[in-house]
Amino acid sequence: MAKFITIGERISTTAPAINKALTERDPEPILKRAKEQIAAGADYIDVNIGPAESDGEDLMKWAVQLIQGECDNIPLALDTSNMKAIEAGITVYNRSKGKPIVNSADAGDRVEYIDLAAANDAIVIALCSKGVVARDNDERMVFLQEMLERGMEKGMDAGEDMWFDPLFLVIKGMQDKQLDILEFIKSISEQGLKSTGGLSNNSNGMPKNIRPIMDSSLLAMAIMNGFTSAIVNPNDRRLMETIKCCDIIRNETIYADTFLDFLDK
Amino acid sequence: MAKFITIGERISTTAPAINKALTERDPEPILKRAKEQIAAGADYIDVNIGPAESDGEDLMKWAVQLIQGECDNIPLALDTSNMKAIEAGITVYNRSKGKPIVNSADAGDRVEYIDLAAANDAIVIALCSKGVVARDNDERMVFLQEMLERGMEKGMDAGEDMWFDPLFLVIKGMQDKQLDILEFIKSISEQGLKSTGGLSNNSNGMPKNIRPIMDSSLLAMAIMNGFTSAIVNPNDRRLMETIKCCDIIRNETIYADTFLDFLDK
Repeated sequence: MAKFITIGERISTTAPAINKALTERDPEPILKRAKEQIAAGADYIDVNIGPAESDGEDLMKWAVQLIQGECDNIPLALDTSNMKAIEAGITVYNRSKGKPIVNSADAGDRVEYIDLAAANDAIVIALCSKGVVARDNDERMVFLQEMLERGMEKGMDAGEDMWFDPLFLVIKGMQDKQLDILEFIKSISEQGLKSTGGLSNNSNGMPKNIRPIMDSSLLAMAIMNGFTSAIVNPNDRRLMETIKCCDIIRNETIYADTFLDFLDK
Repeated sequence: MAKFITIGERISTTAPAINKALTERDPEPILKRAKEQIAAGADYIDVNIGPAESDGEDLMKWAVQLIQGECDNIPLALDTSNMKAIEAGITVYNRSKGKPIVNSADAGDRVEYIDLAAANDAIVIALCSKGVVARDNDERMVFLQEMLERGMEKGMDAGEDMWFDPLFLVIKGMQDKQLDILEFIKSISEQGLKSTGGLSNNSNGMPKNIRPIMDSSLLAMAIMNGFTSAIVNPNDRRLMETIKCCDIIRNETIYADTFLDFLDK
């Protein structure tokens, strides 16, 4: 075991201000969000540049150099459906604080993202899906095995560098499937593999005040089952408090009365 | 599985105002705390009258009739080291909303609390200790088995009416034992048995603002491992929010956007 790893999700084209800043190559809004997330304890920063079909390679290189240059080479997850843009980003990526994460492969059309990670000594987030969401845990495990074999064939250190994403499901609509996902996280852990995922999918459509409460409850349950990282908003204070407490309960961080003080900075 | 069960801990001689009210047979402070706990969702109310060596029988009868009479026969946990007082309380206890809980037996000097529960068709909280705290999970399991056998010999429905308490340990001092306790909760659950415990022991000595954060994180982890009830302060809002979220994630309560509104009443 080890401390729980957080990947900050707030630099994404789904946020209009970030989309605009990426398009206009305007550093300030991007650096502001990067620094906010790092101050709140994010271990990695996700850089989601969207499909970026026309200028993805230039854009990813610009964003990687900007964020790492101004933020002490914080490790990044490079996130786009334009695979060439991820490859370009890696060429300028500084590894002094950790390998880049390729976000993300699946067992279908995006299986080559595994090859990309393998060829570049990167971590890959591997979604346990194949076009559509898996029907059940048996199917999730089939997809995981396909990706695991591919990664190993390509020479990856699968236990370290393949982070499997069970794909969290929305409670409003798929409430009866939540324990399946938690059970699948346990299966991943029991195989000695790492996991991650966009946790907040579970609370989609819930009132804004409920979401941090539900997300942090689910996260503590997932961590109990061996979940090793998550893609989160690190500026969700309740979530970060929960992660830090779980690290203490698992004896991965020595307790001190001041252990949450960094969140007030 | 079933919804998580909460036992409200706030009527106790360890609170000076309650100690005084019990001594003086003053109903108001006691009813106030009972009603506050019930409004916050407590399923049972613990009635801890302390050692109560001189007038325990009268006092427990008075408290049981007072609280059940004014609170729609809410089920109670009868909590004292005076076993005769528990027996006396049961003679006036109204079972229309649930059996009484005998709080508590252990595998040592208090093993006869199991006999008392068996003879009176009551639930018993069975501490997995024998004078001193167990050294490890093997010893906890030995104590559990001793109590389980005794309960079954006496005719108890062990899977329903024996609630085993792993005894939570303080993080400040025994941080490296927390996963043992969680693992033991899992063992209890895997045997098809119920569990409970005074959760807040874990955060003893921590700053007041940290305790609800730590307690709720630990509780979500314990619930993931099959923990079925806890002795808690139901007026700790964060803790109750977490319990209700875990019930939803486990699909034991149907989700509605309003599911936490009762806490604002």
